[in-house]
Amino acid sequence: MISNKMQKLVKNNSVIRQMFEEGKKLEKIYGKENVYDFSLGNPSIEAPKKVNQSIIEIIEKENSLQIHGYMNNAGFEDVRETIANSINQKFNTSFTKENIIMVCGAASGINIILKSILNPNDEVITFAPYFMEYNNYIENYDGKVVAVSPNTKDFQPNLQELEKKITKNTKALLINTPNNPTGVIYSKETIEKISKILEAKQHEYGHEIFLISDEPYRELAYDENEVPYVTKYYSNTFVVYSYSKSLSLPGERIGYVVVPSKMEDSSNIINALTIANRIIGCVNAPSLMQKVIMNCIDEKVDLTSYDTNRNLLYNTLTEYGFECIKPQGAFYLFVKSPIKDDIDFCSKAKEFNILLVPGSSFACPGYVRISYCVSTETIKNSLQAFKKLANSLQLKGK
Amino acid sequence: MISNKMQKLVKNNSVIRQMFEEGKKLEKIYGKENVYDFSLGNPSIEAPKKVNQSIIEIIEKENSLQIHGYMNNAGFEDVRETIANSINQKFNTSFTKENIIMVCGAASGINIILKSILNPNDEVITFAPYFMEYNNYIENYDGKVVAVSPNTKDFQPNLQELEKKITKNTKALLINTPNNPTGVIYSKETIEKISKILEAKQHEYGHEIFLISDEPYRELAYDENEVPYVTKYYSNTFVVYSYSKSLSLPGERIGYVVVPSKMEDSSNIINALTIANRIIGCVNAPSLMQKVIMNCIDEKVDLTSYDTNRNLLYNTLTEYGFECIKPQGAFYLFVKSPIKDDIDFCSKAKEFNILLVPGSSFACPGYVRISYCVSTETIKNSLQAFKKLANSLQLKGK
Repeated sequence: MISNKMQKLVKNNSVIRQMFEEGKKLEKIYGKENVYDFSLGNPSIEAPKKVNQSIIEIIEKENSLQIHGYMNNAGFEDVRETIANSINQKFNTSFTKENIIMVCGAASGINIILKSILNPNDEVITFAPYFMEYNNYIENYDGKVVAVSPNTKDFQPNLQELEKKITKNTKALLINTPNNPTGVIYSKETIEKISKILEAKQHEYGHEIFLISDEPYRELAYDENEVPYVTKYYSNTFVVYSYSKSLSLPGERIGYVVVPSKMEDSSNIINALTIANRIIGCVNAPSLMQKVIMNCIDEKVDLTSYDTNRNLLYNTLTEYGFECIKPQGAFYLFVKSPIKDDIDFCSKAKEFNILLVPGSSFACPGYVRISYCVSTETIKNSLQAFKKLANSLQLKGK
Repeated sequence: MISNKMQKLVKNNSVIRQMFEEGKKLEKIYGKENVYDFSLGNPSIEAPKKVNQSIIEIIEKENSLQIHGYMNNAGFEDVRETIANSINQKFNTSFTKENIIMVCGAASGINIILKSILNPNDEVITFAPYFMEYNNYIENYDGKVVAVSPNTKDFQPNLQELEKKITKNTKALLINTPNNPTGVIYSKETIEKISKILEAKQHEYGHEIFLISDEPYRELAYDENEVPYVTKYYSNTFVVYSYSKSLSLPGERIGYVVVPSKMEDSSNIINALTIANRIIGCVNAPSLMQKVIMNCIDEKVDLTSYDTNRNLLYNTLTEYGFECIKPQGAFYLFVKSPIKDDIDFCSKAKEFNILLVPGSSFACPGYVRISYCVSTETIKNSLQAFKKLANSLQLKGK
């Protein structure tokens, strides 16, 4: 009695569940501290102190009916205004509260955008490797996923292939920078080139092609790498932002979507997004957390430990003979599988109590993802296991 | 560039917006205290003190990473267990945490159920008058809404018509008790009869027909009226619960769905709901609020002021010559329009600064909805305006 669309997902889910259960089994046998679980993207750095202070302050000082009550489906006006001003200050843009829609996290933001723009069989292009949950979001609205194959040289997107894959049915390009799973930040040059391609194709086909920039990792950029603000390069851009990683609040489901006024038909699109937010059942982003965000607008998590993990893991693994590019952002390392099949490699790693996610799960076989959003202690402890894994595969270390 | 499905909604929305703007205009001219806005269902009673105390307690005592972090998409296990136990204690059921899925409010709960069960053109039956947002939820998954016409005698559902309207394409019956907009509680007898009809029709068509019981007003029952627990009468029942009204937390988006183990294929359906929760973008119900619910499991708002409003408004309006049945629950009064067209009547009421919602918006023309979730002060002040309205229509008072 399950809908046809969901049946496939229920089946696949039991496979993931099995992996999860196996991990739990390992923990039971060897002890939690001897299993190195790099499979999850759950932040390991606590929210800034000001977040919890703000919660208490708001609860103590503000009107209870208001902080827990309904508001416009787009969110509290003062919250949206504060966010618009903050973006303007950082990126020299000129947004107002009208351009901001508060949402239940980035996943919800992408859903309401796709619900607002997709007709059945419209195509949404994305660059492999990518977070394959996108497939589900796109298929929710009967859209078709078109993946551009990975550029494994530096994991900047393959723009020649992008150009070829845009058709008259292309409704949007969905990008994610800093990227999950590669940690790559799309450069200013990349964004400029993407914009030019989309502009030309819009002209060629005589209709808009939207750029959806999924940016939950925006604040997680290391070595002062710049993450270009995409609306400045291309008018028909939606920016999807989340506080899941920037403030370590993934469970709270809080983020926003930016719709620039210069987007074609922007005011109707803003209405559509606001209605979609209501009718897919979110209704509005959680009210107290909206207020908290307003109070913490200049806060972000202390990246020190992620950065330490990144350097330690990158330096050591490459020393052991593993191949990967150094991530510029997010909290993932995307490592080339030393054996052909990445799923076999994950099984091999599991023999050493190392839990990884195969690149196949990101439409990029031959690689594996390591989430280093764990304690530095765990990273340190895992190194001997990685060493053994390298030895067992006879990798040539430095 | 807006999707076809959303275009109609964007157009209609501007009408509602216009009504809202007009209300704001009236407030500017006459002062907020002289405009009687009975159009919204936003709770006017504050959350119990323990809710805000719990928020502070949890923030101060518990691990920040955990209270703001990801958990199973179905919600924290301890929260679900506490809820299951509480239901068991109240209704003599035998649920476990496995039967409970935490969701972003009832709207989200209904969406994930419909996504999990509906194929295109499947029919969902509901009893008029009903919350017409249901249409959007059902159409999100390409289902068809089948409305059973209202029984205006006592607003218990019209079961003869239900029986006739069930076809081989019927996938679910969606009920709402205590009811928005009538305030009626479906009696034990009604639920029993519904169950019998559905059982027989399941047998006749050889497939399950689900009963979805939308219960955000469950705790808002007056005069010790009993609200039957529907899973006890019919196995294939989903219960959708929300804390929006019971704890006055509508902005926080927190509720749950109950899937009884005796439901056909229940474990796959529970998986489907959990996945649907993830992929429609909610991912999980807001984490801190889940923990708050656990601490406040025995709390509910003090209904005194709603009850005062109910009695005052019912007694006075019927005295003035308006016709309506006395609501048993929720915070709405559903009044017969003294003139044929309920929309005309709303316009007439607006001349006296009274804002109502036409019954047409609930698939029940000829009636209007008064939301009495306002201060008793507002009710009292509005009575002279209702008196003038009655006089202008030459109603015969008692």
